[in-house]
Amino acid sequence: MHISAKLEEAAKAKRTTFSFEFFPPKTAQGVQNLYDRMDRMHGFGPAFIDITWGAGGRHSQLTCDMVKVAQSVYGLETCMHLTCTDMEKSKIDEALKEAYSAGCTNILALRGDPPREKEKWESTAGGFKYAKDLVKYIRDTYGNHFDVGVAGYAEGCDDQRDTDLLIDHLKQKVDAGATFIVTQMFYDVDIFLGWVQKVRDRGITVPIIPGIMPIHTHASFMRRATWSKCHIPAEWTKALEPVKNDDAAVREVGKGLVTTMCKRLIDAGITHLHFYTMNLAQSTRMVLEELSVLPDLESKELPWRRSLGLNRRDENVRPIFWRNRKASYVARTQDWDEFPNGRWGDSRSPAFGELDTYGIGLKGTNEQNIKLWGHPQSLKDVADLFVRYMQGKVDSLPWSESPISNEVDSLKEGLVDLNSRGILTINSQPAVNGVSSTHPVHGWGPRHGFVYQKAYIEVLVSPELISELITRIERNPDITYHAVNKHSDLKSNVAEEGPNAVTWGVFPGKEIVQPTIVETVSFLAWKDEFFRLGEDWAKCYDAASPSRYLIENLMDTYYLINIVHNDFHETHGIFPLFHGLSIKDLDMPFHKVNGGDSTLSVRPHIKLHDSQPVLN
Amino acid sequence: MHISAKLEEAAKAKRTTFSFEFFPPKTAQGVQNLYDRMDRMHGFGPAFIDITWGAGGRHSQLTCDMVKVAQSVYGLETCMHLTCTDMEKSKIDEALKEAYSAGCTNILALRGDPPREKEKWESTAGGFKYAKDLVKYIRDTYGNHFDVGVAGYAEGCDDQRDTDLLIDHLKQKVDAGATFIVTQMFYDVDIFLGWVQKVRDRGITVPIIPGIMPIHTHASFMRRATWSKCHIPAEWTKALEPVKNDDAAVREVGKGLVTTMCKRLIDAGITHLHFYTMNLAQSTRMVLEELSVLPDLESKELPWRRSLGLNRRDENVRPIFWRNRKASYVARTQDWDEFPNGRWGDSRSPAFGELDTYGIGLKGTNEQNIKLWGHPQSLKDVADLFVRYMQGKVDSLPWSESPISNEVDSLKEGLVDLNSRGILTINSQPAVNGVSSTHPVHGWGPRHGFVYQKAYIEVLVSPELISELITRIERNPDITYHAVNKHSDLKSNVAEEGPNAVTWGVFPGKEIVQPTIVETVSFLAWKDEFFRLGEDWAKCYDAASPSRYLIENLMDTYYLINIVHNDFHETHGIFPLFHGLSIKDLDMPFHKVNGGDSTLSVRPHIKLHDSQPVLN
Repeated sequence: MHISAKLEEAAKAKRTTFSFEFFPPKTAQGVQNLYDRMDRMHGFGPAFIDITWGAGGRHSQLTCDMVKVAQSVYGLETCMHLTCTDMEKSKIDEALKEAYSAGCTNILALRGDPPREKEKWESTAGGFKYAKDLVKYIRDTYGNHFDVGVAGYAEGCDDQRDTDLLIDHLKQKVDAGATFIVTQMFYDVDIFLGWVQKVRDRGITVPIIPGIMPIHTHASFMRRATWSKCHIPAEWTKALEPVKNDDAAVREVGKGLVTTMCKRLIDAGITHLHFYTMNLAQSTRMVLEELSVLPDLESKELPWRRSLGLNRRDENVRPIFWRNRKASYVARTQDWDEFPNGRWGDSRSPAFGELDTYGIGLKGTNEQNIKLWGHPQSLKDVADLFVRYMQGKVDSLPWSESPISNEVDSLKEGLVDLNSRGILTINSQPAVNGVSSTHPVHGWGPRHGFVYQKAYIEVLVSPELISELITRIERNPDITYHAVNKHSDLKSNVAEEGPNAVTWGVFPGKEIVQPTIVETVSFLAWKDEFFRLGEDWAKCYDAASPSRYLIENLMDTYYLINIVHNDFHETHGIFPLFHGLSIKDLDMPFHKVNGGDSTLSVRPHIKLHDSQPVLN
Repeated sequence: MHISAKLEEAAKAKRTTFSFEFFPPKTAQGVQNLYDRMDRMHGFGPAFIDITWGAGGRHSQLTCDMVKVAQSVYGLETCMHLTCTDMEKSKIDEALKEAYSAGCTNILALRGDPPREKEKWESTAGGFKYAKDLVKYIRDTYGNHFDVGVAGYAEGCDDQRDTDLLIDHLKQKVDAGATFIVTQMFYDVDIFLGWVQKVRDRGITVPIIPGIMPIHTHASFMRRATWSKCHIPAEWTKALEPVKNDDAAVREVGKGLVTTMCKRLIDAGITHLHFYTMNLAQSTRMVLEELSVLPDLESKELPWRRSLGLNRRDENVRPIFWRNRKASYVARTQDWDEFPNGRWGDSRSPAFGELDTYGIGLKGTNEQNIKLWGHPQSLKDVADLFVRYMQGKVDSLPWSESPISNEVDSLKEGLVDLNSRGILTINSQPAVNGVSSTHPVHGWGPRHGFVYQKAYIEVLVSPELISELITRIERNPDITYHAVNKHSDLKSNVAEEGPNAVTWGVFPGKEIVQPTIVETVSFLAWKDEFFRLGEDWAKCYDAASPSRYLIENLMDTYYLINIVHNDFHETHGIFPLFHGLSIKDLDMPFHKVNGGDSTLSVRPHIKLHDSQPVLN
């Protein structure tokens, strides 16, 4: 959606909205950390985010990548910055094309700073000289596809302090097709409001978004202010100087100063605030809290985050398996021509991407992962790790990127019990029988609706137990399952192929929405990823180490089984299946598999040929 | 589905199945009556039905039409008879093509009787001489698309009494590609079983279906037996002779004789019985009841009858408006390339057929309709007619082809009340909050499922009341509506276009099924049909008559409004909207509309351009 349209909506509703600016971090780990932070900051409810332009080869590619991930994985409406610095026309074309295919529809067109080695800005041969040229070029090339913003300089810019002249330039940029203005940071509201008046007097009517820099530390506050040459009001200096060596106090005082500034802007009729986050969440969040503009509750359109990728905006059905690995799901499905809308449809046609795509394997270095997950010596150690994850004492597992969600609170006791018995739980959801769509834990979708879930669990089960478990399942006509090991030995009681909706919602005036399904072909794609992640984990340890042997052994012999209780009135229908099942000698080192009979005589048995299941 | 596949299934399950044979009636009224009967006999659960070939121009076209209607409107798996009599190859081609496009996949290939004017059968120039030639031609032309059956003559046929020679012919027909055999009628089980043994000895292994003629009257029994030259066992004559002048007693005795015969066949290993119904239901039903093979309950795959038309077999979503006019819905959508499966989808693309297609207008002659619906002189008379329909005292209304369904039993009191106040109810369903899919009234779909409905009502409302009604509706965020008059003045509170699922089901291992929706574009198509049917009714009366004037006046000024209560937990959420609303002077002749303000200031208001609604 265009930023100018969002601003118009907010202005009509007299609602204060806000946005966050991020820049491409220097290291791969920094990028990953920022993604995690962007994911959490989605919960603050920004109208959009900005990704600044990383001038020069690798950095500019990173900007494009980040725009794509923000749009498609995290569902953040994203504005891509684009500068003329060091950019020939062909590079501009490439960047716009990437933004287009990421589903991005907003560009902030800038001239940019001079390249590092030069003092004065020079245009690149075959490139653009002024931001207005870039604006015009984007308009000429893409018509109204992109909303194009430009920068406003209330206190002059680096190489031009004459603000009147800069307003002339601004007028030219707007005349060239810009539809909104984002200003440089400032601290003096009087200067800003005076400048806005001048801009309006000059006949510029497009929305003006003030750029707000929250205060993180005293040093960074001073550095930024000096660098941007903006005026610091006397009372700011007076308030900050006495606490300058106490970071927490600086943030607290800074919060008050920035909040007061924002309130004055809102009182003056400004409805949107743009925060220069410096890739940090805390200071910005403190100001937003103080302004009381944070949403009470993250209102969820679907149980999972809707993607804003090109062609993906209507996607509203996904398999449950990737619930804790959304980036991987988006990556493995990115080449689909069409995304499921309303129903999953024929599951055979779309192919899941290969595992070697960027972002599928285990995140983090071996050292980091060993620090997180320790040196398990026995299945008991692994079981304990899973128990600690369930209890919120470990933040991730090889198959779960994020801490355990409060959605499984009602199952926690049962999950802890299963794990402590060596039955490792990978994914689960409780049954939900038509609670309000505004329910604090299970709610999603429009108001006045009702949402449902079938109880679901996915566990990694020892070959000792799998036969007995499947026998128990097949006694209950309400329960369906798929079990598979690394060697693609698949068993299921799902006679017909076809998806099983495990989450759905009923809303006024709408068709039924069924955003989460369980289905054979995608389970097999998930299975590959599951065992690969386990192997990645094993490889964190030395080749001859007990941990390596233990985890490899689990991956080689255990079964991944998903179980759906189809009667969603049954809150605790799945756990009884496991009554009395447990692994003998849980704490034996090098846990040995008894029997080792990995081919079970369970019907219906599906054999795999070229990953296409055939019932026999 | 192929008949031979059905027979194989039934044989494996050791389940007795049966089928019905109908012939094309001579008059249009006869055809309509037979359709109604076929519709009711669907409830008996036949595995398939046969339509015999009406040799000669108009009659052969009627066979094709009936096959199409049986398949697509009534969802009956149909076998089309086809004879060589008077059929050049081009006519055979034409008939096969029609069967193909009707979704019919079963043909009974016959030589046929000699044309009426001739005594001896002769082949037509450019046609086929023997049934075996026809079998071979169908196989050569359509491969395995059609299952092809042939006739078996246990007691000889019209021009050939040598049963051994006829078994040779039968062998040739099977060798040419026939996959099942249907026998001529017979009464002597010993003769039949002896013949079956001979057929098997001859190396013919395809299934043999005995043709059973239930006894309707003594005269028809004698006529049929004489005509087919089949042997009547002595005990039959002995049992029937004494009661031959009492039709009811003949049917009762005949039921016993035919049932005993069928039981012997079943004991001898026959699993399928084919009934020559003579287009009558009663005698056949009596035998089926006696054999205890009638289903306890019509098991419904969907709330409405699934069509077996070509391309329609996967159709599983329909608008609710045509619930009482399924033939018309099938006719008006027959040219669609795709039918909604899983979701209604974009409602703008498919166009509904024109009203002048066969089968859309009011059925029956003016005299018949006047007999049914009387000479209403005032709105009160119309209201009384609707009340009597609700009470089951009138079998149809211009907008409802069939008697009131027991589905609305729980609403009956409220519906009678509304109609008695001059608010005419056209269609309705109660709210259903997740009852079992095997529920005797509301159940449909596979076992172990749960079905839901939103409360729905469609009423014809006087312009006096419509504004107040809409004002009340718009106070309740759970209620959505569309109101429209003949002049396409549409009002609705459905902001976004898009279908509203009003019936849905949740089943083990399946996506949510949502077979009934309410939606703007199809409501407008239904509206055209609704007012047209009302005008057809008006035209049953003389031009200057009070009834004509009254009904035309209703059609010209009243609003058709559909109302959905989106909270399906509310069993009686809609009726309170009408509290205290009623028409003044209900029994005033030539009911005059007070005010006559037919353009209401209600938002959102949709204007129509080329039947494409645009919100303004």
